[in-house]
Amino acid sequence: MQASDHSPSAVLKGREAFPHRHLTGISGLQPHEITFLLDEAEQWVGANRAHAKSDKRLEGLTIINAFFENSTRTLLSFEIAGKRLGADVVNMHAAQSSVKKGETLIDTAMTLNAMRADVIVIRHGSSGAVQLIADKVACPVLNAGDGRHEHPTQALLDALTIRRRRGSIANQRVVICGDILHSRVARSNILALTALAAEVRVVAPTTLMPAAIERMGVTPFTDFDAALAGADVVMMLRLQNERMSGAFIPSTREYHLRYGLTPERLARAAPDALVMHPGPMNRGVEIASSVADDPARSAITEQVEMGVAVRMACLDILTRSARGVEGWA
Amino acid sequence: MQASDHSPSAVLKGREAFPHRHLTGISGLQPHEITFLLDEAEQWVGANRAHAKSDKRLEGLTIINAFFENSTRTLLSFEIAGKRLGADVVNMHAAQSSVKKGETLIDTAMTLNAMRADVIVIRHGSSGAVQLIADKVACPVLNAGDGRHEHPTQALLDALTIRRRRGSIANQRVVICGDILHSRVARSNILALTALAAEVRVVAPTTLMPAAIERMGVTPFTDFDAALAGADVVMMLRLQNERMSGAFIPSTREYHLRYGLTPERLARAAPDALVMHPGPMNRGVEIASSVADDPARSAITEQVEMGVAVRMACLDILTRSARGVEGWA
Amino acid sequence: MQASDHSPSAVLKGREAFPHRHLTGISGLQPHEITFLLDEAEQWVGANRAHAKSDKRLEGLTIINAFFENSTRTLLSFEIAGKRLGADVVNMHAAQSSVKKGETLIDTAMTLNAMRADVIVIRHGSSGAVQLIADKVACPVLNAGDGRHEHPTQALLDALTIRRRRGSIANQRVVICGDILHSRVARSNILALTALAAEVRVVAPTTLMPAAIERMGVTPFTDFDAALAGADVVMMLRLQNERMSGAFIPSTREYHLRYGLTPERLARAAPDALVMHPGPMNRGVEIASSVADDPARSAITEQVEMGVAVRMACLDILTRSARGVEGWA
Repeated sequence: MQASDHSPSAVLKGREAFPHRHLTGISGLQPHEITFLLDEAEQWVGANRAHAKSDKRLEGLTIINAFFENSTRTLLSFEIAGKRLGADVVNMHAAQSSVKKGETLIDTAMTLNAMRADVIVIRHGSSGAVQLIADKVACPVLNAGDGRHEHPTQALLDALTIRRRRGSIANQRVVICGDILHSRVARSNILALTALAAEVRVVAPTTLMPAAIERMGVTPFTDFDAALAGADVVMMLRLQNERMSGAFIPSTREYHLRYGLTPERLARAAPDALVMHPGPMNRGVEIASSVADDPARSAITEQVEMGVAVRMACLDILTRSARGVEGWA
Repeated sequence: MQASDHSPSAVLKGREAFPHRHLTGISGLQPHEITFLLDEAEQWVGANRAHAKSDKRLEGLTIINAFFENSTRTLLSFEIAGKRLGADVVNMHAAQSSVKKGETLIDTAMTLNAMRADVIVIRHGSSGAVQLIADKVACPVLNAGDGRHEHPTQALLDALTIRRRRGSIANQRVVICGDILHSRVARSNILALTALAAEVRVVAPTTLMPAAIERMGVTPFTDFDAALAGADVVMMLRLQNERMSGAFIPSTREYHLRYGLTPERLARAAPDALVMHPGPMNRGVEIASSVADDPARSAITEQVEMGVAVRMACLDILTRSARGVEGWA
Repeated sequence: MQASDHSPSAVLKGREAFPHRHLTGISGLQPHEITFLLDEAEQWVGANRAHAKSDKRLEGLTIINAFFENSTRTLLSFEIAGKRLGADVVNMHAAQSSVKKGETLIDTAMTLNAMRADVIVIRHGSSGAVQLIADKVACPVLNAGDGRHEHPTQALLDALTIRRRRGSIANQRVVICGDILHSRVARSNILALTALAAEVRVVAPTTLMPAAIERMGVTPFTDFDAALAGADVVMMLRLQNERMSGAFIPSTREYHLRYGLTPERLARAAPDALVMHPGPMNRGVEIASSVADDPARSAITEQVEMGVAVRMACLDILTRSARGVEGWA
């Protein structure tokens, strides 16, 4: 099956269109499955722009957002997505400290499972924690970010934003700039964008570039200016506060000089290149305000909007089997 | 148009009765608009006393309570108000620390807006933060308290309490006592009560009295006993912990002696004078327990009840235009 | 009336079957009233295992979960229970520190009452705090754990688990092992299990055993091995972190050696003895993982499941009078 990022993934129907029980990452998804998720998300973009946004399809279902890592905006996005579908949504804010041991994490998972959750959305500081939980529970698990591993709904919302703004993902030259080494956003985006046949360039200081990143099908650059030549999309990563001083970068000022997206630097990209950022932004560090706020170029708030739509699509799809939707047995 | 705090604001209908998109403060409201909000709140007082309190008029709408400042009871009141109207209510607890810069506050606002909120309720430590957000988003914004600026729903619930207990607001002699300088509750109350033709006296130690407060149409006193003569309503302000020691007042004991409402002091007011407090109370500091707990005089728990009703009215009214309610286009 | 833990509490109907306004503890309940709560909970076990779990019987009612003590899983359980019954559920997370004085606790109660809550669920660090609130408010109050006093829904979920797994509670030999002195779980369980005619043995180091515990109708042991002889149910208590060092026990290793439930020790109980723990577990301290994870013996996750069912039953029953359910006037 070929990635065709425009087609409505027409051939496969029902369970065959997305045969996965969980969404733990982009890794393991076929290109047409990614496209199916994007196609499904489109309907929710329209629904969310209407004023009565309620849809009762998840009524009577319990979604638990188990966030072991703080994340105001991702939690908000998932909570809104679940409530708009009519589910009972409960948030569990677990201090990372209380779940130090793998055993206890599994106990937490077993507890949520015993409460008869219908979907568990998990954010956790450790790579693989989500898979560990997915292996133990009876309901679908949705990864809302785990360690340096994956953040699949971020990659999906980014792909949807690109597809809507650029018309296609295939053959787009996408530059991802920032802390590639520690970023699950970068990792999930690389997996999704290369699967959908984009040309992906990654840019980072050598201290923040993973070894052998070429194996993921991307071209690494340490020179941001060089990477920007002819770029269709420039995706800036948030510089985490804990990297801002010390071993990884000399200073935020130095970082901005070499890796900050300024209007001058953006001029090296294609004239209509799209600017993206997963938020929250460090203005003046990885991105200049004039770039972030340029409505003609910046898709940053559109990314947030696509986030709710993508999460609604994922929650809908992952519960179809349990809800007995025809074709999803 | 004259303030007539009894009339059902009969003349103006629909959008003309309340032509504002946001509720950022009492400032800027016409007397008849304040009266309209109070009249509308009345129906919710009755509805809340019934046992099945659900009303589905906001079904499918998303209310985000964005609280950048901790406030257990105000948040609870808004959350209950939104849920009783059938809305999807989500709370965003943002540590003040994470939103230090105005830019970032705007980014937060843009994020909430992109999630297609239908109302954003904001509490923030900085005066003017709510207006800043209101200017940037597509949906109505409701001020739940910003810095020293305004707390309009508190003033509305206080006005409703006075109107119900005293029969009228016009010509009532209202004494507001406490930290007038830093209090948004005092400020919004002064604006509402003077608009509705009450006679307002404010009482504070000189260190806690704003300069030129007379310009707001009130009479300042430093002597609480003098101010109380013939008072119909005595509204005590909470003494914030951070003022309790240091430059503003010598000690809480001293404060209580000069500005605490005791039964002896209350005897100087009218025989049936009403006692109010926005809560939470510092018993034995600004108010004696015997006064706070006297059911014949104290309206303190009734204020809490009116709070939910007033917030339901505001949420209903501010969303009428978007909901296509007739006359509110 | 005799405790007959199998009968559907057939004789008494409506209000007579459970004439209490609040559920502040197991103390004060008749055996047939406990049985009635368990019988009612059974229906929710089945409902929760189905996929559409919504029931609208509490629609339009406001449940406030006022948790003055942190408790992730109990709060989650109550929140899910309330939402599955269709209620508007709001959580109040109150730092213990903000409610230090009895006066202020009552003010908080009066505030929740004024917001027209229909049920208030309270967890508080002080024994008796729940009763204090129950005395002040107009709506039913449900104790979700108060100090060392009671945790009635925990005892009910444990009793339901035993009844389902062992067929009966009467004449079961139940061993409760751990910090009996400080445990409200132990206290409520002793009250419920002795009321339902179980034979209860309690095991603790002398430093953690209450004086004159025999008066509660149980047999105290300091030797866990001796207590286990012929046990049908072994209920382990969580060792609170604050007891783990210092005066109460020499070390967690020492505690495990003398009071940890290991496979070797469990062999002293009846061959099919049930293992229980209220969670969260300290694996390797009070319980060995091989015991906790043995599906044939451990009922630990089933306890969590029964918790939601029991809480749904309690919320339903306590609101019947206000909802005008026939026979519950």
